[in-house]
Amino acid sequence: MVSRFDPPAVRALVFDVFGTVVDWRGSIIAEGESYWRPRGLDIDWPAFADAWRAAYGPSMDRVRTGELPWTKLDALHRLALDRLLADFGVTTLSQAEVDDLNRVWHRLNAWPDAPAGLARLKSRYVIATLSNGNVSLLTEMAKFAGLPWDTVLGADLFHHYKPDPEVYLGAAALLDLAPAQVMMVAAHTGDLDAAAKLGLRTAFVHRPLERGPGRGRPRPPDGAYDVVAADFRDLAARLGL
Amino acid sequence: MVSRFDPPAVRALVFDVFGTVVDWRGSIIAEGESYWRPRGLDIDWPAFADAWRAAYGPSMDRVRTGELPWTKLDALHRLALDRLLADFGVTTLSQAEVDDLNRVWHRLNAWPDAPAGLARLKSRYVIATLSNGNVSLLTEMAKFAGLPWDTVLGADLFHHYKPDPEVYLGAAALLDLAPAQVMMVAAHTGDLDAAAKLGLRTAFVHRPLERGPGRGRPRPPDGAYDVVAADFRDLAARLGL
Repeated sequence: MVSRFDPPAVRALVFDVFGTVVDWRGSIIAEGESYWRPRGLDIDWPAFADAWRAAYGPSMDRVRTGELPWTKLDALHRLALDRLLADFGVTTLSQAEVDDLNRVWHRLNAWPDAPAGLARLKSRYVIATLSNGNVSLLTEMAKFAGLPWDTVLGADLFHHYKPDPEVYLGAAALLDLAPAQVMMVAAHTGDLDAAAKLGLRTAFVHRPLERGPGRGRPRPPDGAYDVVAADFRDLAARLGL
Repeated sequence: MVSRFDPPAVRALVFDVFGTVVDWRGSIIAEGESYWRPRGLDIDWPAFADAWRAAYGPSMDRVRTGELPWTKLDALHRLALDRLLADFGVTTLSQAEVDDLNRVWHRLNAWPDAPAGLARLKSRYVIATLSNGNVSLLTEMAKFAGLPWDTVLGADLFHHYKPDPEVYLGAAALLDLAPAQVMMVAAHTGDLDAAAKLGLRTAFVHRPLERGPGRGRPRPPDGAYDVVAADFRDLAARLGL
């Protein structure tokens, strides 16, 4: 029997998305191999996906430090993409095709347990994204991947990127809840540690395949967060659902 | 056969909520009669609902003119409620009960055609609220009334109330769409006229019972808006769904 965490005060679960809900790496590789390679993008797609994602932290830091004014994630992805296409020697795409490729981040597949697990969690809690993605990206992704959010909260609502406190506290304020009534769900310890410091409850969900086979990070021990779960079905069970 | 409006450019439908999607008056009267009257609120519930709603415009004007700083709708409802309870001679409620009564606006019933009609519209369009309600109010209402929004947009995201342009243009910006790619759906001509002036497409939905039996406003003629529909099923049909 799984150990249960029963916080009657929690009213909303807010979810990191990239890596926690959707498989960004597998989805980019799959679209690259099936759609873009036949159109001439004959590149190492796993390396391309990894390089694109590697630009994510440094891009947000340019906003965080004020080097860039507020810039939403779609635009940061596009800045990185223009540079990466040059690095990978791709010169054949039209601007419309580059725009379309940039929107691959709107077309990411859910981890297999996510849609049904979220539906179960939604029966008791408000479920919302709390992602560094922008609202339009997250809304289109939800339709694509079948994610039944009650509402979509993205970094563009706060003009801050996680782990800035404004994002976590801004989400609680929009939901009209105290931080302790909100549980952050993520596959990344940094996200959860920032949330916990502000008084949110935390649930770690292990996604060992996020960075590809054999590159998983270890699962934290039980007790490191309010809940440590194997996937969204296990999370629902541990919350007594 | 219904006449069809086929705007291939429209990507999102944004909905006024109070009166257009939910029956605020009937719901407040029903909760008043069934729940609050047995608890001692022996008042004229239709008159109470009408008086509460009558405070809505003037309350928002106090924010619009700067007499009040930004104040979300839950708080404006509460200011009006405190005054109304005194006017109606109610002195027996605890503060917790007044808080609960104020949240009746989170517990409004959908018009009978709304949940299924929205689900049909969601199959092609992004569907979102665009309401003067706050995000938490609208999110709780959606769970209560079974409204399958893709995302929830409320006035607290913009710190402006409709018909201020910031609300309509802010919604288009969050959805990453041009105004002409967004259709405003409402039962109120003022809302639609403000949206049309900014370049949004418009759909009027007739809700003759919003203000009670025999107090309906006339349905505008076909052609007054991009679509004039009897309800959400009719709206879906006129959009070719």
